[in-house]
This record gives sequence, structure tokens and C-alpha cells, in this order.
Amino acid sequence: MPQLRLLHRRAWTVLLGQLRRPPGAVCIRAVRSHSQGQKYLQVAEALFASQLKPHQEKSNFIIKTPKGTRDLSPQQMVVREKILNVVVSCFKRHGAKGLDTPAFELKEILTEKYGEDSGLIYDLKDQGGELLSLRYDLTVPFARYLAMNKVKKMKRYHVGKVWRRESPTIVQGRYREFYQCDFDIAGQFDPMIPDAECLKIMCEILSELHLGDFLIKVNDRRILDGIFAVCGVPESKFHAICSSVDKLDKISWKDVRHEMVVKKGLAPEVADRIGDYVQCHGGISLVEQMFQDPRLSQNKQALEGLGDLKLLFEYLTVFGVAEKVSFDLSLARGLDYYTGVIYEAVLLQTPVHAEEEPLNVGSVAAGGRYDGLVGMFDPRGHKVPCVGLSIGVERIFSIVEQKMKTFGEKIRTTETQVFVATPQKNFLQERLKLIAELWDAGIKAELMYKNNPKLLPQLHYCENMGIPLVVIIGEQELKEGVIKLRSVPSREEVAIKRENLVAEVQKRLSES
Amino acid sequence: MPQLRLLHRRAWTVLLGQLRRPPGAVCIRAVRSHSQGQKYLQVAEALFASQLKPHQEKSNFIIKTPKGTRDLSPQQMVVREKILNVVVSCFKRHGAKGLDTPAFELKEILTEKYGEDSGLIYDLKDQGGELLSLRYDLTVPFARYLAMNKVKKMKRYHVGKVWRRESPTIVQGRYREFYQCDFDIAGQFDPMIPDAECLKIMCEILSELHLGDFLIKVNDRRILDGIFAVCGVPESKFHAICSSVDKLDKISWKDVRHEMVVKKGLAPEVADRIGDYVQCHGGISLVEQMFQDPRLSQNKQALEGLGDLKLLFEYLTVFGVAEKVSFDLSLARGLDYYTGVIYEAVLLQTPVHAEEEPLNVGSVAAGGRYDGLVGMFDPRGHKVPCVGLSIGVERIFSIVEQKMKTFGEKIRTTETQVFVATPQKNFLQERLKLIAELWDAGIKAELMYKNNPKLLPQLHYCENMGIPLVVIIGEQELKEGVIKLRSVPSREEVAIKRENLVAEVQKRLSES
Repeated sequence: MPQLRLLHRRAWTVLLGQLRRPPGAVCIRAVRSHSQGQKYLQVAEALFASQLKPHQEKSNFIIKTPKGTRDLSPQQMVVREKILNVVVSCFKRHGAKGLDTPAFELKEILTEKYGEDSGLIYDLKDQGGELLSLRYDLTVPFARYLAMNKVKKMKRYHVGKVWRRESPTIVQGRYREFYQCDFDIAGQFDPMIPDAECLKIMCEILSELHLGDFLIKVNDRRILDGIFAVCGVPESKFHAICSSVDKLDKISWKDVRHEMVVKKGLAPEVADRIGDYVQCHGGISLVEQMFQDPRLSQNKQALEGLGDLKLLFEYLTVFGVAEKVSFDLSLARGLDYYTGVIYEAVLLQTPVHAEEEPLNVGSVAAGGRYDGLVGMFDPRGHKVPCVGLSIGVERIFSIVEQKMKTFGEKIRTTETQVFVATPQKNFLQERLKLIAELWDAGIKAELMYKNNPKLLPQLHYCENMGIPLVVIIGEQELKEGVIKLRSVPSREEVAIKRENLVAEVQKRLSES
Repeated sequence: MPQLRLLHRRAWTVLLGQLRRPPGAVCIRAVRSHSQGQKYLQVAEALFASQLKPHQEKSNFIIKTPKGTRDLSPQQMVVREKILNVVVSCFKRHGAKGLDTPAFELKEILTEKYGEDSGLIYDLKDQGGELLSLRYDLTVPFARYLAMNKVKKMKRYHVGKVWRRESPTIVQGRYREFYQCDFDIAGQFDPMIPDAECLKIMCEILSELHLGDFLIKVNDRRILDGIFAVCGVPESKFHAICSSVDKLDKISWKDVRHEMVVKKGLAPEVADRIGDYVQCHGGISLVEQMFQDPRLSQNKQALEGLGDLKLLFEYLTVFGVAEKVSFDLSLARGLDYYTGVIYEAVLLQTPVHAEEEPLNVGSVAAGGRYDGLVGMFDPRGHKVPCVGLSIGVERIFSIVEQKMKTFGEKIRTTETQVFVATPQKNFLQERLKLIAELWDAGIKAELMYKNNPKLLPQLHYCENMGIPLVVIIGEQELKEGVIKLRSVPSREEVAIKRENLVAEVQKRLSES
């Protein structure tokens, strides 16, 4: 049994002082028991240590990022930049303009747009002035922009952070702060042409990112509403039942049915009728089948939705992506504002190694048609039909990161092309002169921030950072008016004329 | 006297229904008085109108962005992207790694870092959980990152939004939400080498952006503290007096002196002594002069600062930028965390046209050394010396935007290279097939989202949007297996083989 260690005199003072809140007697009694004594001993030592170091005053709180958020390290930034480049290039390829909106909106702009999820909105503190909330997605700000500026037609992309107070399960790439990459087409056009382009874009991006096989589930809110209607759901419960259906990708039909009947008060036979529909999925043939459905074909809304889906599949066939798309009656999408076609892309992931857990990332892209949202902001209710998509870059990022770890890929975190080094003392000014020349010529260059660095650490730094070229200057070189140029991979060195430095470096860099 | 107008029957119902809360009798009495009756009449009519137009319910609040914030239109996004490209390229040229931190931090991370400006921090509402604040700059999050990850050495850049509850004067490019572009060097190095690089970077960026002539004011917190000490300011007032000096670029010395004496309780003769110093500015010769100053040369801190400035000017001379830099004893910088050299770049602007108001944009870049900030976060108080700079892109953006307006420059908001058009009906499928080919080859292409568009609007769209090439398909072309390729600027058309489409378009685009 470990002995009660001797306490430093000051530690005792601290301990006794701290224990005074539960009165002194308690303290004395407590220390009489050995295990309690050990505990107090640790507390006292910690308190004592903190009193010795004035800097620790502030550190009773842990230095961390807020719950559900993270910093991105330089390695992670490189990966993210690559992913965003693919996404934005695709958006530009389809003729989209850029747009940016503030991180927060008037609180009223966001209310009644997100259904059951509204509780996840971050509000700002009332510090006198307007009531503000952090944006929850990029769609509502886009609709607000269109209404505010009376824009009737626009194809725009927007890459930006959004914030949701979700219970973060960080392993799966879900955060409270995350990037969204949105592409939307606003305007009155002939049916399903912009919708088909949105699906084409999702296919292009997911293919280009090499994430493995994927599938895009498609449905239509009007078909869902039609199903609810013909199954006997009262209209007042459409939204609630829709968000139950939305859970089918996470929980079983049995559990969804339970929620519908017990929580949302649906008659069991109505739930069962819904169940018969929402468990169907297939391609264009399922669309045809639903057209023949004796009950559904009586519903005007459902027929409109089915007609549009048929057209959509026609265009997707022309685009060569129809086989990536599945008509899935269980797809509901959580958000209130969708009015027509909706879609969601999921990865069909087989783990890289047999022993690996398949990474469950859920949907990696989603979107749909929302023809009523802009009208909600317009004083006269003028509608601007919209359709769009959002790429879940955060989840894609998790996958790419895991892949790189698996394959042990090394990432360069800088783009430095040349390092300016010296083997000798008192050459700082010469190095500064050289590097300024390189910078002024647009060459990416670094040096060591030391007056008299040793040569080896300078060369090691280049090897570690993957810098391909070193410019070396020493007494000999200075006297002869030359510079040594060293290739880091081959370790070969050549002397070149001082005045040819920039030209020679540029030549070397363009060759590699 | 206006007559009490007749109320519509339903309006009366609404009015009476609404007035029921203050009980019925009150209502009857109220309407008996004429002016009150008029008021209720208006209320009732408004209520009635709102009941007639269901869409208007929400629109009693104005659709706008929050105070001090704005959307960036596609035109503005193009300008911003260009500016950010110049800035980030320069940061990368100097070997910086990227880093990203969350938009908000634990509230405690930001407290006691910003002095008098702390009241401008946006807090988030307490929704159960941690107390959070939106970041006020990118420097404190960087220091938090270094301490949290025990990073002792790092050169990083960070481009991101920050938020400050300032009274916005939007004309001058000051917003409550704005971008900062920061470059910082953390680590223990030989004196003034990283500091000189920061100033070199500021010069490179400001030159490359073609903003006209600029000047970088340099000072050192230790010199200021030395001045305060030898002038007889009590040490407890150093921070307060420093922020008074900071106002010298906005208000006159007379007003600053008044603030020092009346508001901050400084003896008038002490203020006068400070005045003698802080009204000095010059080049390296002023550094020498201050070294000889009988009072200042007695102060150890001031001497350290002067020694470093001398070294800094040496390096700046080697970099070829010394003539852009002025030693200015009035420069104080508002933020509490600076410990050594500080700097701020201002534009020396002469208006483009004589009759134009010179655009007062204040400082466009600033920074300094903050050797104590990381230690404030480290549980053991371990210090990591840092020096950095921040580019005020928002103000630069205002200037560039104004310039472009002055010169009537037209900006392309999309990068579309090819438009797929048809002069005939029923060619949608053909157009979709063609455009998919172009997209799949990485070519930026658009088409009209119409089943049967007319040719002229399609060509007009290309001219308006600056799209250089049009691919035209019609019955004739389809029959002959060709495609018409039209140059928008020259209006010349040639027929090419259908199967050569992509190759031919790529050839044309690479030539232009």
C-alpha cells in the first residue's frame, strides 16, 4: 500500500484553505481516511503548483476549439483545397457565377424554413440591435438575395461555412461548423432541364473525386404528398410524416412505422399503406409502374411528379448518367422548402482492405427543387422557381483523408521551389539580397531566419519539405561572381553566373 | 377635417376582433373619438389587407442583410477573387502553409486580448453548452492553435472572415463582417529577419495590386513605452495613453492631448513632453537621432527597440524597400498584444480626376510583433515569439471597385467558353448530347434551358456574357454529320465534322 507522501508546507496551507468551504472539521476527518487523503493530496499538490506559476491563472479552462468544430492543419488544408478546386471548377464549367452572403442573417429570415431542424440554428446574443442567427445553409441566404434584389434568373455557386448545433459524431465527418458547396439555378425554364444538369454536376464531381462507386437516389415531393394523400394521411400531418420517412436511411421501416403510429398518431393501416410504397426503388421502370398504380394514378400531384421524373430520366440518359440514378420512394429530405424533385447521392463503399470497417459517410451530395422559397421573402409573394444541389465536402474530406492515411501518401504543405543557403558565417546580407531577387521574379523561396546557420540543417529542411532546388552562396562563390545550384533529389551541384540566377532557376523549374 | 371613411364589413370584424384584448367597451369608446377612430381605422385596414394577402404576413420586416454586412454580387466576387489571388500567391511565395480555424472560439479565449476594443466582440447566445464568440481577428486563433498543439515554429497564412460590432461607415470600406488575410511567422529566430520579411511582403502585395503610392509607418511598442516612461507617465496608464496616441491618424494632436489630460488624467506637461516625441517621423536618420536623445537614451526598453529598428532598416535596404518605410513615433496600433515592432501601410492617394474626392481608406495593411500572446494560452506560460501582418482586403477591394467604376471596366462574371445553340425546334436532345460531350472534356459550356429557343436570343446572350464560341446544330448539320462553329467577336462561322468537335473547340480556345 503506498505511503501518504509528505506534503510541502505551503501545499498544506493551500489544501486547508481550499477545504474551508466544507468546514474545517470535514477536512480533518477526510484526511484521516487513507484513500481520501491521497485524493486531497493530489488536489492540494495541483492547487499548490498552480499558485507557483502565475501564468496558469487562466488555464483552469482547457484550451480547445468549441464543441463540434476543429482547426484544419496545413496537411488538411491541402486536401481541402484540392477537393474545393474540383468542385468549383465543375460549377464554373457549368456557367455559374460566384456569390457571397454574410455568415449571419436576421433571425426572422431563417425561421420557418427548416422544419424540425430549426432548433439547431445558432443564435447570436442580443447585444442591442438586430436579432441575428448564423446561417444554417446557403440556400435560404440565396433565396433572400434573389428576393431582396428582385433577381428573376441566376445560376450561381457559393462555397462557404454553415453552422448547425448538431450532436457531433466527428468520426463520420459530421461537424457543427462545416463547408457547403452549393450550385443553384433560379428562374422560370422548361421542365427538368436545369434539374437534369444538377444531377449531371453531381455525377461529374463525384467521379472526378475518385470516391468509388456512388448512387443518386431521386424522388419528388409531389409523389410523396400524393402517396400520403392516397394512403389517407391528413394533410396537416404531411410534413411530420415526411420527416419520419426521411429517417429511413438511418433506421428500419419498423422503427419509422412505430414513430408514425405512436409519436405522430397515424392509424396503423395508413402507415402500412405508406410502407408498401416507400420501400420501393428502381429505375425508369419503377416510374412507369407507379403510373399504373391504381391508387397513385388517381392523384394529380403524384402524376405531375411522375411525369417530371420520366422527363428527367430521358435527359439523364442523353447525359449518359441514368445508370447512376435510382428512383427511390423512401427519399424524403428533411428540409421543409422542397417542392418538387429531390435527390441525394450516397457512396457505395467497399473498404480498401478486407479487415477495414466500411466508413459510413451517409450522403455526400443532395438537393432538389424549391419553387416557393423566394416567394416567402418577396413582399408580393412573387415566386422564382429554383433547383440546386449541395456537395457535402466535409464528408468527402473525411474519406479522402482516410484514403491518404491508408496509402501513406505524403503531402507537401508549402509550394516553396528554391531554398537560399550558405555554408559560411556572416552571409545573411548576401542571402537576403539573393532571396529578394527570387521573390521579385515571382519564385517561391525560403531561407533560414538565422544569422549563421549550419549547412546541413538547411539541406535537411529542403529534403523534409520537398523543396527541389537550393541556391548556395559562400565566400568562394562571391569572389568568382557565381552561385551554386543544387538539385535536392539528385544532390548534383553546378555553378552558374550570379547574374543568370533567376533565368537559370526559372528554366530548371519549368523543366521539372 | 377628413371624414371617417366607411369601413368594409370584414375590416370591422377584424378591428373588433383585434380590439377585444382591451375589453369591448374600450373599443366602442375609442371609436367615438374622431382621431382615435382614424388610428383604429388605419390599424383595421392594415390588418384587413394583411388577411387578404397571405404572402404578406411575413413582410412587415424588411428583407435585408444585417447591419454592417453585405452580399457580394458576382461582379464583386470576381474582383475579390483577383485580389485574394495576389495576396495568397505572395504568401505562398514566402513559404507559408495554410491553416483554418473555426469562426467562433470559446469566449474566454478572446477576453483580455483586445483592450478597449473588446466591447466590439460578437457573442453567441447561450443555448446551453459553451459560451462562444465570433473571432475578432485571425491572430488570437493562431496563437491559440500554436499553444493548443504545442507548435514552436510555424509560418502560416490564413484567409478568413472576422466580425466586429463597429459603427459601420460603409463608404470607406468598413464593415462588421470582413475578410482578413494574415501571414505570421512563429518561432525563436535571430532578430528582425522575419520582421523584415513581413514588411517585404506588404510591399510586394501593395505594389502588385497597383493601388498607387504607399507608405509603411513603423514604430516599436518598446520605444513608445520608453517615451511614456521618460515623459513621466505612470506605468498603469501605458495602455490607456497608447490607445490615445493610436488616434493620431484620425484626430489632431490637440484633441489627443485633450483626451490624455481630461479623460485619462495625465499632467499637461507630461502630455506636452509626449507630444514632442510622437509628432516625429522620418527614416533611418530619425532612429539615429533618437539614439542620441538625452532622455530616451537612458531607457533600456527604448534602446532595445531602437536597436532592432536600426537592424530592420538595414535588412529593408537590402530588400530594396527601405524608401517605402517611415519611422513614425505616432504609430501605436490599437491592440493590446503587440510587444515589439509595429507597422501600418497607408496609401498616398491622389485622386484619378482632379474633381474627385480622395478616397480615405485609412490603413490597408498592418501588423507587428506579439511575443507574449501564445504564452497567455500555454498552461506553463511557454512563450512562442511571433510576428505577422494582416492585409485589409476589404478596403483594397473598395478602392479597386471604385477604380473600375471610374474607368468603366466590364467584368466577366462567368468563365463560359462555349455556348451550344440551335436555330430549330425540337433539338433539345441534340443540344444536351453535345453539351455533355463538352463538359466531359472539361470545356466550360452553357445552353438555354428551353425546349425551342430562338437563335437570336442565344447569340445575344453570348455577346452580353462575353462567351467567345458558339456551337450550332440544326437539321442540315445533323444530316451532314457536321457542327457549325461560330466566333462571337468576328461572327465568322465554319462547319466542322461532328466527331472533331471537342478537339476543334480545344484548339480554338488554346489559340485565343
